[in-house]
Amino acid sequence: MNQPEPADELVFLPLGGSGEIGMNLNAYGYGPPDDRRWLVVDIGVTFGREDTIPGVDLVLPDAHYLEGERDNIVGIVLTHAHEDHIGALGWLWPKLKAPVYATPFTAALVREKLKERGLLDKVPLTEIPLKGHLKLGPFEIDFVTLTHSIPEPNGLAVRTPLGLVWHTGDWKIDPDPLIGETTDEAALRAMADEGVLAMVCDSTNVFVEGATGSEAEVRERLVEVIAGCRGRVAVTAFASNVARVETTLHAARACGRTPCLVGRSMHRIYAAAQSVGLLQDVPRIVEEEEAAALPPSKVLYLCTGSQGEPRAALSRIARGDHRQISLREGDTVIFSSRVIPGNEIAIHNLYNQFIERGVSLITADDHPVHVSGHPARDELRQMYAWARPRIAVPVHGERRHLLEHVKLAQELQIPEAIAPNNGDLIRLAPGPVSVIDEVPAGRLYVDGGVIIEAEDDAVRDRKRLATEGAVNVSLALSAKHGILAGPNVTVRGLAMSDDEEFDLALEELEQAAEVAFNKIGRGERDDDEAVEATLVRAVRKAADRLWGKRPLVDVTVLRV
Amino acid sequence: MNQPEPADELVFLPLGGSGEIGMNLNAYGYGPPDDRRWLVVDIGVTFGREDTIPGVDLVLPDAHYLEGERDNIVGIVLTHAHEDHIGALGWLWPKLKAPVYATPFTAALVREKLKERGLLDKVPLTEIPLKGHLKLGPFEIDFVTLTHSIPEPNGLAVRTPLGLVWHTGDWKIDPDPLIGETTDEAALRAMADEGVLAMVCDSTNVFVEGATGSEAEVRERLVEVIAGCRGRVAVTAFASNVARVETTLHAARACGRTPCLVGRSMHRIYAAAQSVGLLQDVPRIVEEEEAAALPPSKVLYLCTGSQGEPRAALSRIARGDHRQISLREGDTVIFSSRVIPGNEIAIHNLYNQFIERGVSLITADDHPVHVSGHPARDELRQMYAWARPRIAVPVHGERRHLLEHVKLAQELQIPEAIAPNNGDLIRLAPGPVSVIDEVPAGRLYVDGGVIIEAEDDAVRDRKRLATEGAVNVSLALSAKHGILAGPNVTVRGLAMSDDEEFDLALEELEQAAEVAFNKIGRGERDDDEAVEATLVRAVRKAADRLWGKRPLVDVTVLRV
Repeated sequence: MNQPEPADELVFLPLGGSGEIGMNLNAYGYGPPDDRRWLVVDIGVTFGREDTIPGVDLVLPDAHYLEGERDNIVGIVLTHAHEDHIGALGWLWPKLKAPVYATPFTAALVREKLKERGLLDKVPLTEIPLKGHLKLGPFEIDFVTLTHSIPEPNGLAVRTPLGLVWHTGDWKIDPDPLIGETTDEAALRAMADEGVLAMVCDSTNVFVEGATGSEAEVRERLVEVIAGCRGRVAVTAFASNVARVETTLHAARACGRTPCLVGRSMHRIYAAAQSVGLLQDVPRIVEEEEAAALPPSKVLYLCTGSQGEPRAALSRIARGDHRQISLREGDTVIFSSRVIPGNEIAIHNLYNQFIERGVSLITADDHPVHVSGHPARDELRQMYAWARPRIAVPVHGERRHLLEHVKLAQELQIPEAIAPNNGDLIRLAPGPVSVIDEVPAGRLYVDGGVIIEAEDDAVRDRKRLATEGAVNVSLALSAKHGILAGPNVTVRGLAMSDDEEFDLALEELEQAAEVAFNKIGRGERDDDEAVEATLVRAVRKAADRLWGKRPLVDVTVLRV
Repeated sequence: MNQPEPADELVFLPLGGSGEIGMNLNAYGYGPPDDRRWLVVDIGVTFGREDTIPGVDLVLPDAHYLEGERDNIVGIVLTHAHEDHIGALGWLWPKLKAPVYATPFTAALVREKLKERGLLDKVPLTEIPLKGHLKLGPFEIDFVTLTHSIPEPNGLAVRTPLGLVWHTGDWKIDPDPLIGETTDEAALRAMADEGVLAMVCDSTNVFVEGATGSEAEVRERLVEVIAGCRGRVAVTAFASNVARVETTLHAARACGRTPCLVGRSMHRIYAAAQSVGLLQDVPRIVEEEEAAALPPSKVLYLCTGSQGEPRAALSRIARGDHRQISLREGDTVIFSSRVIPGNEIAIHNLYNQFIERGVSLITADDHPVHVSGHPARDELRQMYAWARPRIAVPVHGERRHLLEHVKLAQELQIPEAIAPNNGDLIRLAPGPVSVIDEVPAGRLYVDGGVIIEAEDDAVRDRKRLATEGAVNVSLALSAKHGILAGPNVTVRGLAMSDDEEFDLALEELEQAAEVAFNKIGRGERDDDEAVEATLVRAVRKAADRLWGKRPLVDVTVLRV
């Protein structure tokens, strides 16, 4: 490598994923402060939550800063195909417009996403082979094969004139991942010999002692468990865990059952896996209609919906709403999955519905039918022993994960460690690691078909509508400032114990509006805003008196 | 006891708590089907949830059936003072108007609740001593001392001419509960000798193997843990667990720290406990202001808010919003509590905030600083061995708990077992146990200051407002059916990426309304409902096109 210009710096800028699990967006910058080249690594989403941001479908990292640097972005490299690493591409690519690089399986799923957003022909997407190499501006990138809960998880060895950054992406150490090769230990050792400046590393399971275990162990257990079932069997797992999908198909064959895939994403990812040559030695799979005609002991369903998502296949089966699949006494549902925090109640509801039908449940609580895709502490220790970085940069975690990961790195005698916040511009070289700037970072919401700022009044208003309801008042005023019609009141989301009381409440609101109007001086009555503000106050007060709530009140003055 | 009339029946009617953990309302009926006397046991609430029923403060069991039987209710007996057993009294008593019976500590807390609702002088509340006796109509009731996570947990031995029902309430077997006596084993054995017809029993921890452990063990561990802390210590626990409160005060004294109570319910329950003679040997407690002046190693805060409730003391301390208390590097927060399902994310947010401040956390995940108040499987087995009922009636659980409890009872050779649903009228005697009728059961919501039906449109509308937003359209029409003013549109909860687009969207909605109006035939324009329906359809369609959402649309026609 050439000697760097004195002014050159190597910086790391997380814009998502440092402070939450999900929504990863990372960038590496190289060059003098006023003329950096940027390498973007991953561009993921997280999902909305009904309690805090109702109606929001997806949450994206705010990429405004990178948008301003658009001309300096040398490429967007995707480590693997999980939604929290690729899901924002279709939404944010039009703002960044940089070429995209991914390995074949990831590329297959990315293409589908781009197609949905009408971007397939616009985005330059280059497939990189496993263990491939890529030169983008000042960055020389090697794809390093790791193991995770999806095919083709890649770490990135990012070489720059100021040193090598080892960006792990999501990983674990699975000695027998079933699909794909094992962790490329040789590459890691070689990297360490060359000298690793910084390791930017997954923190998800930093509070979990030991190691996460192997997909191969899950296969053994799942075959045993299914062999012990009599009636119909439904296994639910994340579709993106193709090894788990293969395991389930394998278990079906081993137990004399015909498998049936259920759920849109199960079919989608199955097709993507086959398109890149995965899942070749699998038994015949039947459609739901054919499966329904099989004897119970001869069928195995593989379903989406392990998190209790209300519209997923499994929830519909649990409710008895599924057209083709009905489970009952003697049948078994196997949750080959974990409970993602926040989904406990939805999943417990599923359990209750199945148990009420006499369906037996097998979950990871009682049986080892699931392993995590992220490294527990022993695996983290092993990775530090392999890579021997000078700087530890934990990402992919809430604050408590990142700070615990810093402690672990310190215990392991890593010379420097820093827990970044989204938006921290971190200089990795030259000099000791430090935050040299903060850039705007935050969240965007995909709200219906529109991207909006997280701070937008709309979401705040919807939260208030959800708890307090709405009152609308309309009145028609004449040029001479008298009420010609109204005030008419409509109310949403506010109830009374009976209809009569409710009608009385409406009348009281209308009276409150009328009384307030009549108190307005003649001179002010032609000021619509003043009239509206006065009526809003009066009606809000009346609503508080009637319901003990503070609804959103809107007043419309029509001038005739 | 006299021989029963041939027509007499003993029935059990759960109206809450059978199908959920919380909101307990049980009734026992005795007499011929057309002239039963009713004994009500417990009358509790559960809490609202922002994701499913936003804005609902409390959820009450629907007591309409009992309201119709009001004149036949001989009494309302409360087993203990947890909210899910007494919380609905202030809301539902005016509908039932029966005398209320409780032991002293429970009565002290009930009085406060009644005071808040202005009912203190209206409700006849009789204090029953521990191990007391009560005769209400055909029911002879003995209060049997148990152990639980609150003082004065009572099971009820309900004797009738048709047999004895053993109603456990909430319980565990704590060999050293610290406050109150241990489980009254002698009473249970005597009851069994007499013959127990049915046991109506807590199912909360039926999935937990072993035994729950003792408050005394928690005391030992908590003293050890606090002895190892250097800076300020804050312990968070449920205020109603007075033994835990005492333990924390004891640990403070043992570690040379001065305790300070933080949070309204902590003060309220502390006072109630003292009023009935509990908590007599406690160290001096200081106010927050005095505590703030103590050296960090000399203070111990005991706080509410273990579930991450945003307005509780602990959340405010975590956010740095508390006037008197600030925790920082070197300080420790001890969660002497469990994570109630559904609260994971709120609690994890607390963890993140504390860890970000350098505050150390100790939780029941890593240290034995909490035990449950409900019986695990070994304790359930012990209770069945003691009581030897003919019929097992599991309550206080979701469906999966009740059905698992039935299985356990069957394993234990209990001759009959039935998992009730709320509203099942279950004949316990004569004859084999069976559901002989279903009565209306369900939920009521305390919504602001009003009690509404769970099925009310208001809550459904608020859920839709939360995700889809609202559009309101007003227009003034003349007698000759022309538009005099408007249509004016207001929008709530719908955003665009920028203001210009938003203004264009409003215009488009107004145009959609106007175009739709102009298409209405002259003859129909004087029909307000028809005009409104037409405009609602048009505006909804336009909104869907603009936002990909389906807002609630209201149209107001003003006739001038």
